[in-house]
Amino acid sequence: SGVFTIDRLKCHHPRKRVSHDFHILKTQDWINVVALTEDGRFIMVRQHRLGTDDYTMETPAGLIERGEKPEEAARRELEEETGYSPRDLVLLKRLSANPAIMNNRIYYYLATGCRKAHRQKLDPAEDIEVLLYTREEIIELIQGNRIDHSIIITALSLYFLSPYNDARGGESYYGQ
Amino acid sequence: SGVFTIDRLKCHHPRKRVSHDFHILKTQDWINVVALTEDGRFIMVRQHRLGTDDYTMETPAGLIERGEKPEEAARRELEEETGYSPRDLVLLKRLSANPAIMNNRIYYYLATGCRKAHRQKLDPAEDIEVLLYTREEIIELIQGNRIDHSIIITALSLYFLSPYNDARGGESYYGQ
Repeated sequence: SGVFTIDRLKCHHPRKRVSHDFHILKTQDWINVVALTEDGRFIMVRQHRLGTDDYTMETPAGLIERGEKPEEAARRELEEETGYSPRDLVLLKRLSANPAIMNNRIYYYLATGCRKAHRQKLDPAEDIEVLLYTREEIIELIQGNRIDHSIIITALSLYFLSPYNDARGGESYYGQ
Repeated sequence: SGVFTIDRLKCHHPRKRVSHDFHILKTQDWINVVALTEDGRFIMVRQHRLGTDDYTMETPAGLIERGEKPEEAARRELEEETGYSPRDLVLLKRLSANPAIMNNRIYYYLATGCRKAHRQKLDPAEDIEVLLYTREEIIELIQGNRIDHSIIITALSLYFLSPYNDARGGESYYGQ
């Protein structure tokens, strides 16, 4: 699919006398964008995902292309997937996706003051529905497990626990 | 390594006239445990990870073995990796690891009242250092990017935003 390649490593522990094969997924870095409209609603994308063969509710996200800066990728993916352009874009955090088996990083951005400026520009295999939710609705979606994608929960948490969240302190994700 | 296998899917979009190859990582479900000692310190594990070829600071975690219940796996991994046994264990949330490319779920647990009861029982390839941190130290480690593993940030966020966090409202992860 072009998303990842596999590296096989033969590893020898420096002190313990054991050798093991490990497989590492090598992939480009990713961006993920918590995007808020001018009136403070969350811009979410709903799409079918093949890993779990189910629909997911996600913040806009994608791969950083070769030669592209993370911030450029965040702006491009947001505009392509949703048609919205941000007034401001700030990096919330750069994290490792999964250091046990993957080599890549995820850059989490916050896009504020977003306005609908274009149509969606989707890749041939993409089919994405754009939906707007209030802050209370997003928290309900998490509590009810309608948002259940680990990376998306990370993105929303980084926003909820950042100084950019004016109403900080009222959130609770709990609910199964 | 036995952690995952790859499935190749030939997919045809039901409305758009395109076909694509997708690769799905199939793996067992995982557990991840935010573990607190009787005096409220976080039990963390430090180990070398091959995906990023670097040391990570993590909450105890592992694979659910065949025939094992998620809660049993959480208790087993906590005891094996750290030697601590919990008084109480509650499920904070079940999430999808990454529905775009993986088929598995992650069960996030909170273990409280943990006491050192055993020695570590490590797999031959594991080499894990156990470290205890206060709540303030954990937040500083996140702010300073010394905890930068996306799944671990998810686990800690699920705890910080749960009703089990008595001091809820004071956290901020921001800092780059």
